[in-house]
Amino acid sequence: MQGTGSDRSIFFNAHHSPVGAFASFTLGFPGAKGGMGLELGGPANEDVYIGCEDGKQEGLLLAFPFFGKGSEDEAVRYDVEAAAPQDGATVLKSFAHESITREFACCRDTWQSGDLRLSIISPVKSIPDPEGAGEEALRAALVPAVMAELTLDNTSGKRPRKLFFGYRGSDRYSAMRRIDDTTGGRLRGIGQGRQTAMVTDDSSAWSGLAFTLDKVVCPEIPENLVFGLAGVGAVVAEAAPGEKKTLRVALCFYRDGIATSGWDTTYYYTRLFSNIESVAEYALTHFDDALSQADAFDAELREAQLSDDRHFMLAHAIRSYYGSTELLCRDEQPLWVVNEGEYRMMNTFDLTADHLFFEMKMNPWVVRNVMELFVERYSYQDKVRFPGDATEYPGGISFTHDMGMANVFSRPHYSAYELFRLDGCFSHMTHEQLVNWVCCSATYALVGGDQEWSRKQADVFAGCLESLLNRDNPDPAKRDGIMALDSSRTMGGAEITTYDSLDASLGQARNNLYLAVKTWAAYVCLEKIFADLQDEQRAAVAAEQAQRAAATITAQADTDGMLPAILNEGNHSRIIPAIEGLVFPYLCGLHDAVADSGQYAALIKTLQRHLETVLKPGICLFDSGGWKISSTSRNSWLSKIYLSQFVAEAVLGGKDAALSDKADSDHVAWLLDPENAYFAWSDQMVDGKARGSKYYPRGVTAILWTR
Amino acid sequence: MQGTGSDRSIFFNAHHSPVGAFASFTLGFPGAKGGMGLELGGPANEDVYIGCEDGKQEGLLLAFPFFGKGSEDEAVRYDVEAAAPQDGATVLKSFAHESITREFACCRDTWQSGDLRLSIISPVKSIPDPEGAGEEALRAALVPAVMAELTLDNTSGKRPRKLFFGYRGSDRYSAMRRIDDTTGGRLRGIGQGRQTAMVTDDSSAWSGLAFTLDKVVCPEIPENLVFGLAGVGAVVAEAAPGEKKTLRVALCFYRDGIATSGWDTTYYYTRLFSNIESVAEYALTHFDDALSQADAFDAELREAQLSDDRHFMLAHAIRSYYGSTELLCRDEQPLWVVNEGEYRMMNTFDLTADHLFFEMKMNPWVVRNVMELFVERYSYQDKVRFPGDATEYPGGISFTHDMGMANVFSRPHYSAYELFRLDGCFSHMTHEQLVNWVCCSATYALVGGDQEWSRKQADVFAGCLESLLNRDNPDPAKRDGIMALDSSRTMGGAEITTYDSLDASLGQARNNLYLAVKTWAAYVCLEKIFADLQDEQRAAVAAEQAQRAAATITAQADTDGMLPAILNEGNHSRIIPAIEGLVFPYLCGLHDAVADSGQYAALIKTLQRHLETVLKPGICLFDSGGWKISSTSRNSWLSKIYLSQFVAEAVLGGKDAALSDKADSDHVAWLLDPENAYFAWSDQMVDGKARGSKYYPRGVTAILWTR
Repeated sequence: MQGTGSDRSIFFNAHHSPVGAFASFTLGFPGAKGGMGLELGGPANEDVYIGCEDGKQEGLLLAFPFFGKGSEDEAVRYDVEAAAPQDGATVLKSFAHESITREFACCRDTWQSGDLRLSIISPVKSIPDPEGAGEEALRAALVPAVMAELTLDNTSGKRPRKLFFGYRGSDRYSAMRRIDDTTGGRLRGIGQGRQTAMVTDDSSAWSGLAFTLDKVVCPEIPENLVFGLAGVGAVVAEAAPGEKKTLRVALCFYRDGIATSGWDTTYYYTRLFSNIESVAEYALTHFDDALSQADAFDAELREAQLSDDRHFMLAHAIRSYYGSTELLCRDEQPLWVVNEGEYRMMNTFDLTADHLFFEMKMNPWVVRNVMELFVERYSYQDKVRFPGDATEYPGGISFTHDMGMANVFSRPHYSAYELFRLDGCFSHMTHEQLVNWVCCSATYALVGGDQEWSRKQADVFAGCLESLLNRDNPDPAKRDGIMALDSSRTMGGAEITTYDSLDASLGQARNNLYLAVKTWAAYVCLEKIFADLQDEQRAAVAAEQAQRAAATITAQADTDGMLPAILNEGNHSRIIPAIEGLVFPYLCGLHDAVADSGQYAALIKTLQRHLETVLKPGICLFDSGGWKISSTSRNSWLSKIYLSQFVAEAVLGGKDAALSDKADSDHVAWLLDPENAYFAWSDQMVDGKARGSKYYPRGVTAILWTR
Repeated sequence: MQGTGSDRSIFFNAHHSPVGAFASFTLGFPGAKGGMGLELGGPANEDVYIGCEDGKQEGLLLAFPFFGKGSEDEAVRYDVEAAAPQDGATVLKSFAHESITREFACCRDTWQSGDLRLSIISPVKSIPDPEGAGEEALRAALVPAVMAELTLDNTSGKRPRKLFFGYRGSDRYSAMRRIDDTTGGRLRGIGQGRQTAMVTDDSSAWSGLAFTLDKVVCPEIPENLVFGLAGVGAVVAEAAPGEKKTLRVALCFYRDGIATSGWDTTYYYTRLFSNIESVAEYALTHFDDALSQADAFDAELREAQLSDDRHFMLAHAIRSYYGSTELLCRDEQPLWVVNEGEYRMMNTFDLTADHLFFEMKMNPWVVRNVMELFVERYSYQDKVRFPGDATEYPGGISFTHDMGMANVFSRPHYSAYELFRLDGCFSHMTHEQLVNWVCCSATYALVGGDQEWSRKQADVFAGCLESLLNRDNPDPAKRDGIMALDSSRTMGGAEITTYDSLDASLGQARNNLYLAVKTWAAYVCLEKIFADLQDEQRAAVAAEQAQRAAATITAQADTDGMLPAILNEGNHSRIIPAIEGLVFPYLCGLHDAVADSGQYAALIKTLQRHLETVLKPGICLFDSGGWKISSTSRNSWLSKIYLSQFVAEAVLGGKDAALSDKADSDHVAWLLDPENAYFAWSDQMVDGKARGSKYYPRGVTAILWTR
């Protein structure tokens, strides 16, 4: 995939990440704006030096533009009286931007300038369920390293030229070091502390440390490459005249010991690799395997024959997701976490529900893992109240918004995010997370075919049904299928939805159209779950509730066929995510439920008409063609757009190719806007500018496009 | 000690550190310029919030001025459409600077403004030798915590007033959290990740997290104090009307797991405390013990009856030293490291030789520990060469400049610092470190009375003697007692001294007057060591070499009685550290050697006269009265001044009280200069401005003043 349109910049940050390591070699935005990020909510902002000696001018080092101006000589800190200027024989410069091309796919990111070519390879692959998987298979999946190949074509060169790969680490706590020393010289590399490293097993290469890059690449005395005070490290090789030289480098991450607080866990990979040296050893020994994995996944994506724009967004989104993934271990059991981009909240449930589609393809067992964790540690029981009335009625089970933040687990049964007595951002999402547990668990059980697990969770499914009923109305006769009562956890406030930073059109939970359809979906899925469990009574209740919800929603269409964002409250906002919930019955194979000729035909037709009507400029389209998820907000979320696009096209069968391409093109333009491109993939776009949810994992909803 | 002179600012950063934890609660410079620093080469630059509700104006929080302007509400990052302004009922302001007083001693730092008083208590105490010490004694010595008492005198108050103690952690990797959750509610506190925490066991207090401090201190809803996304944490208590309330807080540090690379070690305290919660529990349970220890050491320092200026500098220097100390553990054995301030080099040997005086008083066993480490892992054998001549002659044993940097151990037998083929900064210090090993080991053995250890190290002492001889002249007949050959490790370059950033007057090793006198001292000490070992032959050789060195030096005095900084090379620089080496024979009780009527009377008288003559404006005094260690450099080093002051006064018997007070006053002014005060105690002062060796441990040479 060559670029993404000729007028678009290729200089955007992208993650290059192993899976499950909460690590990212982020690169692509000019300046010291990327680097070896471990557990960060944004790029590491390190100088990265990848380049070669110029073919013509001696003493000139040319590199891709990923380092800052402040590449000063630190020597002056030590020798305060010394005249700062060095002889300056060797000079580092960036390749001219216009000389650079980039080929960007999901697992390979390739940069070229002149005769230098850089490929960064980060395979996307399934992780075997650790229960029952062999150690070797786990090692292959979880090795916390990213691969790079730097190739200098010196076939027409008359003199040897060096090629280099290095960085200036930004960890506050530890110094840069040479890896050669701790691998008995078998490997050559540099790193910072125990956490990050760039390593090769190329025996013709060398590693070095210096205050500035030029002194590593062109050392006056090779012995001085050991300089332990230096902040810049690099791996260097040489291409002989006439040689096309490829230097292979493993970019490694490692955090050992207890990695989290609040609840003590370690990274799962620490069971498989004893330190960063053993990570490097493994990654380099299995370099070719990684290339195969990467190319296989990229080929698979190409087979989906997405448009260039969609292919680009999906690849970019998977990368950002991978950088946020974290496979931990507690009591020898795996514990899957996805961190929430810049916010780093852990397993935010309303994101889990969107990551579901990707994980059902790649690693269904992690869905089960997270659902169980929600049941065991992050569920709670509440009461419910009608708005403005302090009377409490029975509530039931629900689940927390998240499990903590930035490697701090929140206390059992509480999230990091949810606060009390609020009706806006930071309030509780009780009803939504209840629906999310049902939809995710049902999808796992039904799509994954794990009946045994459904049986184990039968009580939880039953509790969820009861909890849903109680949030509808304490009086069974008055139930209409949708949420009417707020959790007592709000302490008299009001519940919100995942769309927490939008206005009431999407932000308010009670009577919310988006949540109503998703609740309908939950009932539809529950009916199937209970039917499979031969619990006819609950299946019937669920079916009845689904019918009620469908009727309630359908009745709200206005004369133009549009549904209000908030039902029963005179609201006039229009929202695209009305259709979002359809995805779950569809994926679960409940095709009759989502067919416009099935038992919910009225609902489906109403949603079809609603979507057709709102997808217009002035309502739910930006003038530039992008989708606007709410008519009353300029804040639109790409992850949710991707999801609704899928529902619109695959479920509701509506796709105007030209309009669709125009929308996709606009969405790509948002991501590549120079103001946004630093943050890799971002979600919340206010008038096309990333204003929240930056550096974010949620875009993997785009995987639905490949179905 | 009330201030340090009425026109001097009290707003200087000082370390408040446990021993051996490489940790510092640095505080005192206005702004977000201090905080909970772990393993850092400078202040943590965090907002620190210590204050109380104003007695008059409701909703006004007053705090000591240790937070930055950027105390904005982070909520806007999450809720991008929300209007930023909150109701603003509660406002945080700094106390007026002029309302604040500070009482600064070594172990207690007390701040007062109006009716609020803050004492930070960091006891200085001996660490029992872990070999043979009980666990409880080690816990008491090594608990990685600093204590604080915050007292609000509300005796005349009419309404309850809150007092608070908190911070906004600056660790990149982990979130802020409540400690209550992980101590079963027994303790109340907040912290960041597993590394830092502020904790109380006051059952009337509470802890909380919020985006801004006011919401922790005056929460609308106490339930919201748990907010896991928040960056600001604090412990809060209330003083009832009529009450004088004291809140006790333990400021805790913890780094678990393997803490170093290059060579795997852990912090010794991790054997004694399982996590930061157990540190807090211990510190709070033993709070009174810490106060007693602190007050006992402060009383001891007062008994030395130093001038206010000297008392201040000593107290300040000990604090900076403590923050740099690090007791590690490898193979169940202790491993003592002092980190080199802003540079964080580990056990820089030329600093070890200056820290010696403090550790001989506090923990002689750490001197032994470090000397053994230098022998076992950081010694080497070299050859030697005359300048400009490639012929190699036998050299011998010496020791590396350091053992690594910022928790990265350098490879065996090599330092992080020393480079090759240089003759300035970053060259080798082979001769100086050889002399340092002899002087430190002899002092440990002779002053500590550890004859058994001398016997164990007899071969090393013998090797050192031979190595010294070989560096004088390969031809015994031509030896003059001082260094004439450079190590082959310089690869044809030249050795330097610890004064690496000064000109040749102090920077060049060969023929250097400072090093010559120190070499003489090494021979004098070796004579005694060998005599005690009944090795008469080596004792005689050492004595002969001492005589030669003395004669060589004495012969170089010019008609004014001044010695050149570089012997035999026509150099005209004048240096104070000529006298530095006398400290070792003096401390070792070899009083005859340093008496002006003893066997080295000629040398001692020459040095007396040299010092008298150079200690004049235009030579080795700044116009402002401060000492200028070299006549040809404006870079003067406080640690070395303190040491030379001691030698001048105690050994050479020369002290003009008025001149001395003027010098001390100037030295204090350097430290308190607003440009320098951020760095706590700093060493290298260029015209009184800290230009290198900032945030530095070396000033503990001042402990000599208390003898």
